[in-house]
Amino acid sequence: MKRLLVIGIGAGNPDYITMQAVKALNRVDVFFLMDKGRSKDKLLDLRRDICERYITNPAYRFVEAHSPERERGDVDYTRAVEDLNRARQETFVRLIDEQLSDGQCGGFLVWGDPALYDSTIRILQAILASGRCAFEYEVIPGITSVQALAAQHKVPLNTIGQPIEITTGRRLAAGQVSDTDSLVVMLDAEDAYRRVADEETEIYWGAYLGTPDEILIRGKLKDVAEQIERTRKAARAAHGWIMDTYLLRKP
Amino acid sequence: MKRLLVIGIGAGNPDYITMQAVKALNRVDVFFLMDKGRSKDKLLDLRRDICERYITNPAYRFVEAHSPERERGDVDYTRAVEDLNRARQETFVRLIDEQLSDGQCGGFLVWGDPALYDSTIRILQAILASGRCAFEYEVIPGITSVQALAAQHKVPLNTIGQPIEITTGRRLAAGQVSDTDSLVVMLDAEDAYRRVADEETEIYWGAYLGTPDEILIRGKLKDVAEQIERTRKAARAAHGWIMDTYLLRKP
Ligand SMILES: C[S@@+](CC[C@H](N)C(=O)[O-])C[C@H]1O[C@@H](n2cnc3c(N)ncnc32)[C@H](O)[C@@H]1O
Ligand SMILES: C[S@@+](CC[C@H](N)C(=O)[O-])C[C@H]1O[C@@H](n2cnc3c(N)ncnc32)[C@H](O)[C@@H]1O
Repeated sequence: MKRLLVIGIGAGNPDYITMQAVKALNRVDVFFLMDKGRSKDKLLDLRRDICERYITNPAYRFVEAHSPERERGDVDYTRAVEDLNRARQETFVRLIDEQLSDGQCGGFLVWGDPALYDSTIRILQAILASGRCAFEYEVIPGITSVQALAAQHKVPLNTIGQPIEITTGRRLAAGQVSDTDSLVVMLDAEDAYRRVADEETEIYWGAYLGTPDEILIRGKLKDVAEQIERTRKAARAAHGWIMDTYLLRKP
Repeated sequence: MKRLLVIGIGAGNPDYITMQAVKALNRVDVFFLMDKGRSKDKLLDLRRDICERYITNPAYRFVEAHSPERERGDVDYTRAVEDLNRARQETFVRLIDEQLSDGQCGGFLVWGDPALYDSTIRILQAILASGRCAFEYEVIPGITSVQALAAQHKVPLNTIGQPIEITTGRRLAAGQVSDTDSLVVMLDAEDAYRRVADEETEIYWGAYLGTPDEILIRGKLKDVAEQIERTRKAARAAHGWIMDTYLLRKP
């Protein structure tokens, strides 16, 4: 049997890696690195860095695969991701068939936690369901960007006894959010926090969390929204890409 | 200056500890262990076990403090937690005053992640705001029980592009939940999943996650709700306490 490990490596700081992940890294024969567009160089470097730092058995190798890009712009988001995931199934099946022999172990290094806005688990399940190849797999959790955000701002994600909603910039921009007092927003390509009506809302914003480029801004929307928009724009221009997340806390 | 580290140790498996947490553990002079009623022995043991396993400098010590218990039963939940937290502020202030000298470092080992349904950060902020004692503090994230649940069931927490709500059993029982397709329930003392109307809903349930006593059950509510209720009751009777969490996924 072939075995796959879906390993959460944390979202930014190499020290976010868990002991469980370190043990898992050391079981892997072949790491599959999926390249993902512009942010790829830095993120691939971090993955290699983590392997070098924590793997004691040097008999592992990397296989880089080009990951098809999601169609951007004015298309149905769910459909675009589903199409992408079908294309990625092909890539995964090929990798598993060609690069792993029986009894070997393949590893996917997933940014943050594999259970949060990541398709690796979904793709592996679809491959198994299709019967196109057989393998066993395990999932190893990792520190998410949401946790990095909360820790760096030293802020609880919830208020006492109240819920937390984790959602996308797309949904916030469309007004499709519940009325919880704690809203975490990821995948925001469009400064969706500007659409929040109550300007007394507190925002805890973080970019490149856990990395040397980390930026943190917090305050009431009326006081910091413009500063965040400016900072975001400048950072995106300087780096060529941006990863940012924020918590909105109602007054 | 005194320094405090609020260290997330993960929710169950000692291997959930991060490298960042291991480094933090090694900076601590005094660990404050808060005892918390019935589940205390096992949880304190795990904390001691983590320290023994990962601390290379043996010059640390433990101080156990009795943590006042929250008033149970038919009382206002938020009020009860707030009262409790005020009492815990007193305890914390006393510990910091009496047990730490200037330049020393105190550590709080928090189950899971300090940002998720935990009051340590809130209590420290209240103490600082009151001006009753001065210190610097840092927060180190840890793997939450929500992530342990998802990893052990190998299930993504969200469906593509959709939000996740994390809430309490109390709120689910009261019908105070949004209509998201992914609902994570914690702190459920009352089998609140039995109140979900759509019995086609999939439940991913986990108890004592990451520990040798872990129990996992999944399936449609109509097929497994009774099994979960029975299992829960039996486990609570056997252990004297239970920690469980579940994901509800709408069809
Ligand atoms: C496709 S999702 C992956 C999330 C990841 N699995 C996790 O656990 O954090 C990518 C989004 O995560 C957030 N993100 C990831 N890493 C981040 C970081 N280091 N700083 C800020 N946001 C980050 C951003 O909102 C980004 O749009
Ligand atoms: C006060 S909250 C603390 C949560 C913790 N800070 C975290 O990050 O998971 C306690 C609740 O967490 C959940 N929980 C904590 N540890 C768990 C475990 N090992 N297995 C299942 N549920 C757990 C249960 O829902 C429990 O009622």
